[in-house]
Amino acid sequence: MKHARIVHQGATQRAVERDGQLLLADGKLVAFDAVTWLPPVDPAPRPRTILALGLNYADHAKELAFKAPEEPLVFLKGEGALNGHRQFTKRPPEVQFMHYECELTVVIGRTARKVKRDDAYDFIAGYTVANDYAIRDYLENWYRPNLRVKNRDGATPLGPFLVDRDDVPDPMDLKLQTTVNGKVTQSGHTKDMIFGVPFLIEYFSSFMTLQPGDLILTGTPDGVVDCRRGDVVVTEIERLGALENTIQ
Amino acid sequence: MKHARIVHQGATQRAVERDGQLLLADGKLVAFDAVTWLPPVDPAPRPRTILALGLNYADHAKELAFKAPEEPLVFLKGEGALNGHRQFTKRPPEVQFMHYECELTVVIGRTARKVKRDDAYDFIAGYTVANDYAIRDYLENWYRPNLRVKNRDGATPLGPFLVDRDDVPDPMDLKLQTTVNGKVTQSGHTKDMIFGVPFLIEYFSSFMTLQPGDLILTGTPDGVVDCRRGDVVVTEIERLGALENTIQ
Repeated sequence: MKHARIVHQGATQRAVERDGQLLLADGKLVAFDAVTWLPPVDPAPRPRTILALGLNYADHAKELAFKAPEEPLVFLKGEGALNGHRQFTKRPPEVQFMHYECELTVVIGRTARKVKRDDAYDFIAGYTVANDYAIRDYLENWYRPNLRVKNRDGATPLGPFLVDRDDVPDPMDLKLQTTVNGKVTQSGHTKDMIFGVPFLIEYFSSFMTLQPGDLILTGTPDGVVDCRRGDVVVTEIERLGALENTIQ
Repeated sequence: MKHARIVHQGATQRAVERDGQLLLADGKLVAFDAVTWLPPVDPAPRPRTILALGLNYADHAKELAFKAPEEPLVFLKGEGALNGHRQFTKRPPEVQFMHYECELTVVIGRTARKVKRDDAYDFIAGYTVANDYAIRDYLENWYRPNLRVKNRDGATPLGPFLVDRDDVPDPMDLKLQTTVNGKVTQSGHTKDMIFGVPFLIEYFSSFMTLQPGDLILTGTPDGVVDCRRGDVVVTEIERLGALENTIQ
């Protein structure tokens, strides 16, 4: 099942995808473009930890002229960074390079502590797509990745849907693609991750507890380009859907 | 006023300090050692962003053999890292160096966006003490500070109290002190911060919205030592109180 959170006629509600439309709780079907899309995860019934991977695809690390990490390069994101499908993300006026990052995102479904990688999938609720924009200008210091690169208001669109785990037979076998104004600029495959989903759940849960609703953004493959105001950026993952964002 | 969150006779509740005791909502006075202390901030009625500064005291940066940063070195923490007064924090069995960090912590009281430093105090609800333990072993790679250093379950005691802003005439004029098993090992003063509280609120709110309940841990001065199992570590800040933690 594909779950969405949307605003329709002024009311925030959950909906599910049905034959290319959205089925609301009251049984109505509405078109995708008749609603405002929110991030497809609950507005934190409890605090949420948002984990994000850097340089988790060797080709992308090479593209940025970094050595692939020997241990996961992880940082945290604040809730204010999240944004919905078909929303807008600001490009700061003074910067030279803002790039998108199409990322498979894992939504945790059960409290996970010291989980072995063979059991990792049991702790997943589902998956969604993130576009984890980065302002490259701010990356060039020793203490990267920093907040000005990765934690700006609304700079991480998420969605459109939370797709149930059982609808995705193998999250390590999914194509990723990004288009800018309809032109393909990034193509990758989740099998090329350096640290795969089961490893990451084992790793994190070895020293911190993962809670239902926590997110893991698993990094992006190569093919990042600068985005300008007015660009329409669509980050898409096989089986999960296409997440659209416009640069403002 | 000094506000606490505690568990007393099985019930989680708020309390305030009154003449060296805790005044409960039902009017009862109970002793400090008759309760279990929780972090003195709400259990996130909404998602909370926890910001933490690294190397924000020049002497501490020097102690760790780093150059003082030219821009705030900031990282985020997850909610699971928080712990209460008089609780226990684990020392991982295999590590060589675990140190405490006594830190003035700012609790945001109003939504803050593009705030000027002259107005910064208007956006503060109050202050508390953090002990932002670090596992130094994990720091020695290029991608510091990382999650294994700073985001372990329960590795950031907070409290005992949230002290109202108006009870602290100048947060940039407070003595800090840490004792280990009663012996003073760290002495500092908030006036020695590189980036002070008003600057930090201006800086963060320039690119991200600070929300009520968000926390800013403002860094630690020099004087960190290794802590071992059984050590009782008390991080204390003038006017705010003494936060006790035992290494497990």
